[in-house]
Amino acid sequence: MQRYFVEPEAIQQETVTITGDDVKHITRVLRMEAEDEVIVCDGVGHAYRVELTELGSEQVAGRIIEKLDTTSEARVKITLAQGLPKGDKMDLIVQKGTEVGVSRFLPVEMSRCIVQYDQKKEQKRRERWQKIAKEAAEQAHRTMIPSVGIGMTFKQLLNNLDGFDLVIVPYEGEKARGLRDVLQEHGQPEHICVVIGPEGGIADGEIEAALAAGAIPVTLGSRIMRTETAGLVAAACICYQFGEMGG
Amino acid sequence: MQRYFVEPEAIQQETVTITGDDVKHITRVLRMEAEDEVIVCDGVGHAYRVELTELGSEQVAGRIIEKLDTTSEARVKITLAQGLPKGDKMDLIVQKGTEVGVSRFLPVEMSRCIVQYDQKKEQKRRERWQKIAKEAAEQAHRTMIPSVGIGMTFKQLLNNLDGFDLVIVPYEGEKARGLRDVLQEHGQPEHICVVIGPEGGIADGEIEAALAAGAIPVTLGSRIMRTETAGLVAAACICYQFGEMGG
Repeated sequence: MQRYFVEPEAIQQETVTITGDDVKHITRVLRMEAEDEVIVCDGVGHAYRVELTELGSEQVAGRIIEKLDTTSEARVKITLAQGLPKGDKMDLIVQKGTEVGVSRFLPVEMSRCIVQYDQKKEQKRRERWQKIAKEAAEQAHRTMIPSVGIGMTFKQLLNNLDGFDLVIVPYEGEKARGLRDVLQEHGQPEHICVVIGPEGGIADGEIEAALAAGAIPVTLGSRIMRTETAGLVAAACICYQFGEMGG
Repeated sequence: MQRYFVEPEAIQQETVTITGDDVKHITRVLRMEAEDEVIVCDGVGHAYRVELTELGSEQVAGRIIEKLDTTSEARVKITLAQGLPKGDKMDLIVQKGTEVGVSRFLPVEMSRCIVQYDQKKEQKRRERWQKIAKEAAEQAHRTMIPSVGIGMTFKQLLNNLDGFDLVIVPYEGEKARGLRDVLQEHGQPEHICVVIGPEGGIADGEIEAALAAGAIPVTLGSRIMRTETAGLVAAACICYQFGEMGG
Protein backbone atom coordinates (compact mmCIF):
# COMPACT_ATOMS: atom_id res chain seq x y z
CA MET A 1 0.00 0.00 0.00
CA GLN A 2 1.24 3.50 -0.82
CA ARG A 3 2.89 5.37 2.04
CA TYR A 4 3.00 9.08 2.82
CA PHE A 5 4.61 11.06 5.56
CA VAL A 6 2.79 13.99 7.12
CA GLU A 7 3.66 16.38 9.91
CA PRO A 8 2.44 15.14 13.31
CA GLU A 9 0.06 18.17 13.44
CA ALA A 10 -1.67 16.93 10.28
CA ILE A 11 -3.17 14.12 12.34
CA GLN A 12 -6.03 15.31 14.55
CA GLN A 13 -7.90 12.54 16.34
CA GLU A 14 -9.38 10.42 13.52
CA THR A 15 -8.65 12.83 10.71
CA VAL A 16 -5.55 13.13 8.53
CA THR A 17 -4.82 16.02 6.19
CA ILE A 18 -2.28 15.52 3.41
CA THR A 19 -0.86 18.59 1.69
CA GLY A 20 2.04 19.53 -0.60
CA ASP A 21 3.47 17.39 -3.41
CA ASP A 22 1.76 14.24 -2.13
CA VAL A 23 -1.65 15.65 -3.13
CA LYS A 24 -0.63 15.63 -6.77
CA HIS A 25 0.83 12.13 -6.35
CA ILE A 26 -2.42 10.80 -4.88
CA THR A 27 -4.84 12.53 -7.23
CA ARG A 28 -2.97 12.75 -10.52
CA VAL A 29 -0.21 10.14 -10.53
CA LEU A 30 -2.08 7.31 -8.78
CA ARG A 31 -5.57 8.72 -9.59
CA MET A 32 -6.91 7.58 -6.24
CA GLU A 33 -10.49 8.14 -5.21
CA ALA A 34 -12.53 8.37 -2.03
CA GLU A 35 -12.53 5.09 -0.08
CA ASP A 36 -9.07 4.14 -1.42
CA GLU A 37 -6.60 3.40 1.35
CA VAL A 38 -3.06 4.57 2.04
CA ILE A 39 -0.62 4.31 4.93
CA VAL A 40 0.16 7.59 6.65
CA CYS A 41 3.19 8.01 8.92
CA ASP A 42 3.77 10.98 11.17
CA GLY A 43 7.53 10.75 10.75
CA VAL A 44 8.17 10.26 14.44
CA GLY A 45 7.34 6.57 14.61
CA HIS A 46 3.56 6.18 14.19
CA ALA A 47 1.82 4.67 11.17
CA TYR A 48 -1.87 4.48 10.34
CA ARG A 49 -4.05 2.83 7.73
CA VAL A 50 -6.15 5.65 6.32
CA GLU A 51 -9.23 5.72 4.09
CA LEU A 52 -9.35 8.75 1.85
CA THR A 53 -12.51 10.83 2.26
CA GLU A 54 -12.09 14.09 0.33
CA LEU A 55 -9.68 14.65 -2.54
CA GLY A 56 -9.15 18.30 -3.44
CA SER A 57 -6.53 20.02 -5.58
CA GLU A 58 -4.83 21.56 -2.52
CA GLN A 59 -5.32 18.88 0.08
CA VAL A 60 -6.51 15.35 0.63
CA ALA A 61 -8.40 14.34 3.77
CA GLY A 62 -8.67 10.87 5.21
CA ARG A 63 -10.01 8.94 8.18
CA ILE A 64 -7.86 6.66 10.32
CA ILE A 65 -9.02 3.04 10.08
CA GLU A 66 -6.38 1.58 12.37
CA LYS A 67 -3.08 2.30 14.01
CA LEU A 68 -0.38 -0.02 12.71
CA ASP A 69 2.34 -1.75 14.65
CA THR A 70 5.49 0.10 13.78
CA THR A 71 8.25 -2.40 13.43
CA SER A 72 10.43 -1.03 10.66
CA GLU A 73 12.72 1.15 12.76
CA ALA A 74 15.93 -0.36 14.05
CA ARG A 75 16.27 -0.30 17.85
CA VAL A 76 19.84 0.93 17.47
CA LYS A 77 19.97 4.52 16.27
CA ILE A 78 22.73 5.35 13.81
CA THR A 79 23.97 8.86 13.12
CA LEU A 80 26.15 9.16 10.04
CA ALA A 81 28.58 12.07 10.35
CA GLN A 82 29.78 12.39 6.77
CA GLY A 83 32.77 14.42 5.62
CA LEU A 84 31.23 16.51 2.86
CA PRO A 85 31.87 14.72 -0.45
CA LYS A 86 32.15 16.10 -3.98
CA GLY A 87 29.31 16.64 -6.42
CA ASP A 88 26.00 14.97 -5.71
CA LYS A 89 27.43 12.05 -3.71
CA MET A 90 25.67 13.24 -0.57
CA ASP A 91 22.37 12.60 -2.38
CA LEU A 92 23.34 8.94 -2.80
CA ILE A 93 24.54 8.72 0.81
CA VAL A 94 21.24 10.09 2.16
CA GLN A 95 19.12 7.88 -0.09
CA LYS A 96 20.98 4.63 0.52
CA GLY A 97 21.64 5.37 4.18
CA THR A 98 17.90 5.89 4.70
CA GLU A 99 17.15 2.54 3.07
CA VAL A 100 19.62 0.77 5.33
CA GLY A 101 18.37 2.41 8.52
CA VAL A 102 20.42 5.52 9.38
CA SER A 103 18.41 7.83 11.64
CA ARG A 104 20.37 11.05 11.27
CA PHE A 105 22.83 12.54 8.77
CA LEU A 106 25.34 15.19 9.76
CA PRO A 107 27.27 16.90 6.93
CA VAL A 108 30.69 17.73 8.35
CA GLU A 109 33.36 20.02 6.98
CA MET A 110 36.70 18.26 7.36
CA SER A 111 40.21 19.33 6.47
CA ARG A 112 40.47 17.17 3.36
CA CYS A 113 37.05 18.08 1.99
CA ILE A 114 37.42 19.25 -1.59
CA VAL A 115 34.23 21.29 -1.43
CA GLN A 116 33.76 23.76 1.35
CA TYR A 117 30.43 24.02 3.09
CA ASP A 118 28.66 26.98 1.56
CA GLN A 119 26.58 28.86 4.12
CA LYS A 120 24.51 30.57 1.42
CA LYS A 121 23.47 27.30 -0.16
CA GLU A 122 22.91 25.75 3.27
CA GLN A 123 19.15 25.95 3.38
CA LYS A 124 18.59 24.81 -0.19
CA ARG A 125 20.90 21.82 0.14
CA ARG A 126 19.40 20.69 3.42
CA GLU A 127 15.92 20.94 1.94
CA ARG A 128 17.08 18.81 -0.97
CA TRP A 129 18.64 16.14 1.27
CA GLN A 130 15.61 16.18 3.57
CA LYS A 131 13.35 15.60 0.56
CA ILE A 132 15.54 12.69 -0.59
CA ALA A 133 15.36 11.23 2.94
CA LYS A 134 11.55 11.54 2.98
CA GLU A 135 11.15 9.83 -0.38
CA ALA A 136 13.59 7.07 0.48
CA ALA A 137 11.86 6.54 3.85
CA GLU A 138 8.49 6.17 2.10
CA GLN A 139 9.93 3.73 -0.40
CA ALA A 140 11.76 1.73 2.30
CA HIS A 141 8.58 1.52 4.44
CA ARG A 142 10.20 3.32 7.32
CA THR A 143 8.04 4.98 9.92
CA MET A 144 10.51 7.78 10.67
CA ILE A 145 12.16 10.22 8.32
CA PRO A 146 15.87 10.51 9.07
CA SER A 147 16.85 14.08 9.80
CA VAL A 148 19.62 15.97 8.07
CA GLY A 149 21.53 18.21 10.43
CA ILE A 150 22.97 21.64 9.80
CA GLY A 151 26.47 21.60 8.34
CA MET A 152 29.12 21.71 11.05
CA THR A 153 32.87 21.74 11.40
CA PHE A 154 34.75 18.68 12.62
CA LYS A 155 35.46 20.50 15.87
CA GLN A 156 31.76 21.17 16.37
CA LEU A 157 31.07 17.49 15.76
CA LEU A 158 33.60 16.46 18.40
CA ASN A 159 32.03 18.87 20.86
CA ASN A 160 28.67 17.17 20.36
CA LEU A 161 29.41 13.50 20.92
CA ASP A 162 27.89 13.33 24.41
CA GLY A 163 24.62 11.79 23.30
CA PHE A 164 26.24 8.72 21.73
CA ASP A 165 27.05 5.43 23.45
CA LEU A 166 29.66 4.65 20.83
CA VAL A 167 31.49 6.70 18.20
CA ILE A 168 33.35 4.77 15.53
CA VAL A 169 35.63 6.11 12.84
CA PRO A 170 36.47 3.79 9.93
CA TYR A 171 40.06 4.74 9.18
CA GLU A 172 42.61 3.36 6.73
CA GLY A 173 45.40 3.76 9.25
CA GLU A 174 43.73 1.40 11.72
CA LYS A 175 44.89 -2.11 10.87
CA ALA A 176 44.09 -4.17 13.94
CA ARG A 177 40.78 -3.23 15.54
CA GLY A 178 37.85 -4.27 13.36
CA LEU A 179 34.31 -2.96 13.33
CA ARG A 180 33.06 -6.33 14.59
CA ASP A 181 35.49 -6.37 17.52
CA VAL A 182 34.21 -3.01 18.69
CA LEU A 183 30.51 -3.79 18.20
CA GLN A 184 30.82 -7.09 20.03
CA GLU A 185 32.59 -5.42 22.95
CA HIS A 186 29.92 -2.79 23.45
CA GLY A 187 26.77 -4.72 24.36
CA GLN A 188 23.61 -3.07 23.10
CA PRO A 189 24.38 0.58 22.42
CA GLU A 190 21.31 2.74 21.84
CA HIS A 191 22.89 5.37 19.65
CA ILE A 192 26.01 4.93 17.54
CA CYS A 193 27.76 7.68 15.59
CA VAL A 194 29.73 6.64 12.50
CA VAL A 195 32.23 9.24 11.30
CA ILE A 196 33.26 8.95 7.64
CA GLY A 197 36.05 11.02 6.10
CA PRO A 198 35.66 12.73 2.71
CA GLU A 199 37.37 11.52 -0.49
CA GLY A 200 40.83 12.32 0.80
CA GLY A 201 40.23 10.52 4.09
CA ILE A 202 40.53 11.73 7.65
CA ALA A 203 43.60 13.79 8.43
CA ASP A 204 46.02 12.58 11.12
CA GLY A 205 45.24 15.57 13.31
CA GLU A 206 41.54 14.86 13.05
CA ILE A 207 42.03 11.23 14.08
CA GLU A 208 44.01 12.37 17.12
CA ALA A 209 41.31 14.85 18.08
CA ALA A 210 38.62 12.22 17.57
CA LEU A 211 40.51 9.76 19.76
CA ALA A 212 40.85 12.38 22.46
CA ALA A 213 37.08 12.93 22.24
CA GLY A 214 36.43 9.24 22.83
CA ALA A 215 35.90 8.02 19.27
CA ILE A 216 37.23 4.58 18.30
CA PRO A 217 39.07 4.12 14.97
CA VAL A 218 38.22 0.82 13.24
CA THR A 219 39.12 -0.97 10.04
CA LEU A 220 36.40 -2.12 7.66
CA GLY A 221 38.77 -4.75 6.29
CA SER A 222 41.44 -4.73 3.63
CA ARG A 223 39.33 -3.39 0.78
CA ILE A 224 39.35 0.39 0.62
CA MET A 225 35.87 1.80 0.17
CA ARG A 226 34.94 5.13 -1.32
CA THR A 227 33.54 7.77 1.01
CA GLU A 228 29.99 7.30 -0.30
CA THR A 229 30.20 3.52 0.26
CA ALA A 230 31.86 3.30 3.67
CA GLY A 231 29.05 4.79 5.78
CA LEU A 232 26.39 2.72 4.10
CA VAL A 233 28.40 -0.46 4.63
CA ALA A 234 29.19 0.39 8.27
CA ALA A 235 25.49 1.09 8.92
CA ALA A 236 24.49 -2.20 7.27
CA CYS A 237 26.99 -4.12 9.42
CA ILE A 238 25.76 -2.40 12.60
CA CYS A 239 22.16 -3.35 11.75
CA TYR A 240 23.32 -6.90 11.00
CA GLN A 241 25.21 -7.17 14.29
CA PHE A 242 22.17 -6.12 16.31
CA GLY A 243 19.72 -8.37 14.48
CA GLU A 244 18.12 -5.58 12.50
CA MET A 245 18.96 -6.99 9.08
CA GLY A 246 16.65 -9.98 9.25
CA GLY A 247 17.06 -12.42 12.12
CA MET B 1 51.11 3.48 -4.07
CA GLN B 2 49.31 3.48 -7.41
CA ARG B 3 47.90 0.10 -8.49
CA TYR B 4 47.43 -1.34 -11.94
CA PHE B 5 45.99 -4.61 -13.17
CA VAL B 6 47.65 -6.42 -16.05
CA GLU B 7 46.89 -9.71 -17.77
CA PRO B 8 48.80 -12.62 -16.19
CA GLU B 9 50.75 -13.00 -19.50
CA ALA B 10 52.10 -9.47 -19.08
CA ILE B 11 54.26 -10.75 -16.23
CA GLN B 12 57.26 -12.74 -17.48
CA GLN B 13 59.73 -13.73 -14.78
CA GLU B 14 61.06 -10.40 -13.44
CA THR B 15 59.54 -8.21 -16.12
CA VAL B 16 56.13 -6.56 -16.29
CA THR B 17 54.68 -4.91 -19.38
CA ILE B 18 51.83 -2.43 -18.95
CA THR B 19 49.75 -1.53 -22.01
CA GLY B 20 46.43 0.15 -22.85
CA ASP B 21 44.87 3.10 -20.99
CA ASP B 22 47.17 2.65 -17.99
CA VAL B 23 50.17 3.81 -20.07
CA LYS B 24 48.60 7.22 -20.49
CA HIS B 25 47.70 7.29 -16.79
CA ILE B 26 51.28 6.53 -15.77
CA THR B 27 53.06 8.79 -18.24
CA ARG B 28 50.70 11.72 -18.70
CA VAL B 29 48.34 11.86 -15.71
CA LEU B 30 50.81 10.92 -12.97
CA ARG B 31 53.92 11.89 -15.02
CA MET B 32 55.90 9.04 -13.55
CA GLU B 33 59.50 8.39 -14.50
CA ALA B 34 61.96 5.51 -14.55
CA GLU B 35 62.70 4.24 -11.00
CA ASP B 36 59.24 5.26 -9.78
CA GLU B 37 57.34 2.40 -8.20
CA VAL B 38 53.83 1.03 -8.65
CA ILE B 39 51.93 -2.05 -7.51
CA VAL B 40 51.00 -4.43 -10.30
CA CYS B 41 48.32 -7.10 -9.86
CA ASP B 42 47.71 -9.94 -12.29
CA GLY B 43 43.99 -9.95 -11.53
CA VAL B 44 44.01 -13.54 -10.33
CA GLY B 45 45.35 -12.88 -6.86
CA HIS B 46 49.03 -11.94 -7.15
CA ALA B 47 50.46 -8.50 -6.45
CA TYR B 48 53.99 -7.17 -7.00
CA ARG B 49 55.93 -4.04 -6.16
CA VAL B 50 57.39 -2.93 -9.46
CA GLU B 51 60.04 -0.38 -10.39
CA LEU B 52 59.39 1.26 -13.75
CA THR B 53 62.29 0.88 -16.19
CA GLU B 54 61.12 2.11 -19.59
CA LEU B 55 58.25 4.48 -20.27
CA GLY B 56 57.10 4.59 -23.88
CA SER B 57 54.00 6.01 -25.52
CA GLU B 58 52.57 2.53 -26.21
CA GLN B 59 53.83 0.57 -23.26
CA VAL B 60 55.56 0.84 -19.92
CA ALA B 61 58.03 -1.78 -18.72
CA GLY B 62 58.99 -2.50 -15.15
CA ARG B 63 61.01 -4.84 -12.98
CA ILE B 64 59.55 -6.79 -10.07
CA ILE B 65 61.11 -5.74 -6.75
CA GLU B 66 59.08 -8.03 -4.53
CA LYS B 67 56.01 -10.20 -4.45
CA LEU B 68 53.48 -8.85 -1.98
CA ASP B 69 51.35 -10.77 0.44
CA THR B 70 47.88 -10.66 -1.01
CA THR B 71 45.45 -10.22 1.80
CA SER B 72 42.71 -8.05 0.36
CA GLU B 73 40.49 -10.80 -1.06
CA ALA B 74 37.77 -12.24 1.14
CA ARG B 75 38.03 -15.98 1.77
CA VAL B 76 34.33 -16.32 1.08
CA LYS B 77 33.53 -15.82 -2.60
CA ILE B 78 30.33 -13.95 -3.36
CA THR B 79 28.55 -14.11 -6.71
CA LEU B 80 25.87 -11.47 -7.16
CA ALA B 81 23.16 -12.63 -9.57
CA GLN B 82 21.36 -9.37 -10.27
CA GLY B 83 17.98 -9.02 -11.94
CA LEU B 84 18.77 -6.52 -14.68
CA PRO B 85 17.84 -3.05 -13.38
CA LYS B 86 16.81 0.08 -15.25
CA GLY B 87 19.11 2.74 -16.64
CA ASP B 88 22.69 2.79 -15.42
CA LYS B 89 22.02 1.22 -12.02
CA MET B 90 24.09 -1.83 -12.96
CA ASP B 91 27.12 0.50 -13.16
CA LEU B 92 26.59 1.45 -9.52
CA ILE B 93 26.02 -2.17 -8.51
CA VAL B 94 29.28 -3.31 -10.14
CA GLN B 95 31.29 -0.43 -8.71
CA LYS B 96 29.99 -0.66 -5.14
CA GLY B 97 29.86 -4.46 -5.16
CA THR B 98 33.52 -4.54 -6.17
CA GLU B 99 34.45 -2.23 -3.30
CA VAL B 100 32.63 -4.44 -0.80
CA GLY B 101 34.15 -7.69 -2.09
CA VAL B 102 31.86 -9.36 -4.64
CA SER B 103 33.88 -11.73 -6.84
CA ARG B 104 31.46 -12.24 -9.73
CA PHE B 105 28.47 -10.42 -11.19
CA LEU B 106 25.80 -12.20 -13.21
CA PRO B 107 23.24 -10.02 -15.02
CA VAL B 108 19.99 -12.03 -15.04
CA GLU B 109 16.85 -11.46 -17.08
CA MET B 110 13.89 -11.97 -14.77
CA SER B 111 10.18 -11.76 -15.40
CA ARG B 112 9.69 -8.37 -13.75
CA CYS B 113 12.70 -6.76 -15.42
CA ILE B 114 11.61 -3.53 -17.07
CA VAL B 115 14.48 -3.63 -19.54
CA GLN B 116 15.07 -6.76 -21.58
CA TYR B 117 18.57 -8.02 -22.06
CA ASP B 118 19.68 -6.85 -25.47
CA GLN B 119 21.87 -9.41 -27.23
CA LYS B 120 23.23 -6.83 -29.67
CA LYS B 121 24.42 -4.55 -26.90
CA GLU B 122 25.73 -7.53 -24.92
CA GLN B 123 29.40 -7.18 -25.69
CA LYS B 124 29.53 -3.42 -25.27
CA ARG B 125 27.72 -3.49 -21.95
CA ARG B 126 29.85 -6.28 -20.57
CA GLU B 127 33.01 -4.40 -21.58
CA ARG B 128 31.67 -1.33 -19.81
CA TRP B 129 30.87 -3.23 -16.61
CA GLN B 130 34.19 -5.06 -16.73
CA LYS B 131 36.02 -1.73 -17.03
CA ILE B 132 34.08 -0.36 -14.04
CA ALA B 133 35.01 -3.50 -12.06
CA LYS B 134 38.70 -3.09 -12.96
CA GLU B 135 38.80 0.57 -11.92
CA ALA B 136 36.90 -0.10 -8.70
CA ALA B 137 39.21 -3.04 -7.91
CA GLU B 138 42.29 -0.82 -8.37
CA GLN B 139 40.78 1.89 -6.19
CA ALA B 140 39.70 -0.61 -3.51
CA HIS B 141 43.18 -2.23 -3.44
CA ARG B 142 41.80 -5.58 -4.47
CA THR B 143 44.12 -8.16 -5.99
CA MET B 144 41.46 -9.73 -8.21
CA ILE B 145 39.14 -8.13 -10.71
CA PRO B 146 35.59 -9.40 -10.27
CA SER B 147 34.27 -10.91 -13.47
CA VAL B 148 31.04 -9.94 -15.16
CA GLY B 149 29.23 -12.92 -16.65
CA ILE B 150 27.25 -13.12 -19.87
CA GLY B 151 23.60 -12.17 -19.49
CA MET B 152 21.43 -15.18 -18.74
CA THR B 153 17.82 -16.02 -18.08
CA PHE B 154 16.58 -16.89 -14.61
CA LYS B 155 16.17 -20.50 -15.72
CA GLN B 156 19.79 -20.62 -16.90
CA LEU B 157 20.86 -19.23 -13.52
CA LEU B 158 18.93 -21.95 -11.67
CA ASN B 159 20.55 -24.59 -13.87
CA ASN B 160 23.97 -23.32 -12.84
CA LEU B 161 23.84 -23.30 -9.07
CA ASP B 162 25.92 -26.45 -8.56
CA GLY B 163 29.14 -24.63 -7.79
CA PHE B 164 27.72 -22.77 -4.79
CA ASP B 165 27.64 -23.93 -1.17
CA LEU B 166 24.77 -21.59 -0.42
CA VAL B 167 22.29 -19.65 -2.57
CA ILE B 168 20.30 -16.95 -0.82
CA VAL B 169 17.45 -14.87 -2.21
CA PRO B 170 16.47 -11.74 -0.28
CA TYR B 171 12.72 -11.65 -0.76
CA GLU B 172 10.01 -9.34 0.59
CA GLY B 173 7.63 -12.26 1.06
CA GLU B 174 9.98 -13.98 3.51
CA LYS B 175 9.18 -12.66 6.97
CA ALA B 176 10.75 -15.14 9.34
CA ARG B 177 14.12 -16.46 8.16
CA GLY B 178 16.75 -13.76 8.34
CA LEU B 179 20.04 -13.49 6.49
CA ARG B 180 21.92 -13.91 9.77
CA ASP B 181 20.02 -17.09 10.70
CA VAL B 182 21.01 -18.69 7.43
CA LEU B 183 24.64 -17.56 7.49
CA GLN B 184 25.09 -18.77 11.07
CA GLU B 185 23.61 -22.17 10.20
CA HIS B 186 25.94 -22.78 7.28
CA GLY B 187 29.40 -22.90 8.81
CA GLN B 188 32.08 -21.56 6.50
CA PRO B 189 30.73 -21.67 2.95
CA GLU B 190 33.34 -21.09 0.26
CA HIS B 191 31.11 -19.66 -2.40
CA ILE B 192 27.77 -17.94 -1.83
CA CYS B 193 25.39 -16.79 -4.54
CA VAL B 194 23.10 -13.86 -3.72
CA VAL B 195 20.11 -13.51 -6.06
CA ILE B 196 18.54 -10.05 -6.20
CA GLY B 197 15.30 -9.31 -8.03
CA PRO B 198 14.92 -6.26 -10.31
CA GLU B 199 12.87 -3.13 -9.38
CA GLY B 200 9.58 -5.02 -9.41
CA GLY B 201 10.93 -7.81 -7.20
CA ILE B 202 11.07 -11.53 -7.74
CA ALA B 203 7.89 -13.09 -9.12
CA ASP B 204 6.13 -15.80 -7.11
CA GLY B 205 6.85 -18.42 -9.78
CA GLU B 206 10.53 -17.50 -9.72
CA ILE B 207 10.69 -17.90 -5.94
CA GLU B 208 9.10 -21.34 -6.23
CA ALA B 209 11.56 -22.38 -8.93
CA ALA B 210 14.47 -21.02 -6.89
CA LEU B 211 13.31 -22.94 -3.81
CA ALA B 212 13.06 -26.11 -5.88
CA ALA B 213 16.62 -25.50 -7.06
CA GLY B 214 17.85 -25.30 -3.47
CA ALA B 215 17.95 -21.53 -2.96
CA ILE B 216 16.98 -20.11 0.44
CA PRO B 217 14.72 -17.04 0.65
CA VAL B 218 15.69 -14.63 3.41
CA THR B 219 14.54 -11.32 4.79
CA LEU B 220 16.97 -8.41 5.09
CA GLY B 221 14.78 -6.90 7.79
CA SER B 222 11.75 -4.68 7.77
CA ARG B 223 13.17 -1.89 5.67
CA ILE B 224 12.60 -2.43 1.94
CA MET B 225 15.77 -1.78 -0.05
CA ARG B 226 15.99 -0.82 -3.69
CA THR B 227 17.37 -3.39 -6.09
CA GLU B 228 20.70 -1.57 -6.41
CA THR B 229 21.09 -1.43 -2.62
CA ALA B 230 20.05 -4.94 -1.58
CA GLY B 231 22.93 -6.89 -3.13
CA LEU B 232 25.57 -4.50 -1.82
CA VAL B 233 24.09 -4.71 1.68
CA ALA B 234 23.79 -8.50 1.58
CA ALA B 235 27.41 -8.79 0.40
CA ALA B 236 28.58 -6.43 3.17
CA CYS B 237 26.73 -8.49 5.80
CA ILE B 238 28.22 -11.74 4.44
CA CYS B 239 31.72 -10.26 4.66
CA TYR B 240 30.95 -9.02 8.16
CA GLN B 241 29.65 -12.42 9.29
CA PHE B 242 32.83 -14.16 8.11
CA GLY B 243 35.21 -11.65 9.61
CA GLU B 244 36.08 -10.01 6.30
CA MET B 245 34.92 -6.54 7.26
CA GLY B 246 37.61 -5.85 9.79
CA GLY B 247 38.03 -8.25 12.68
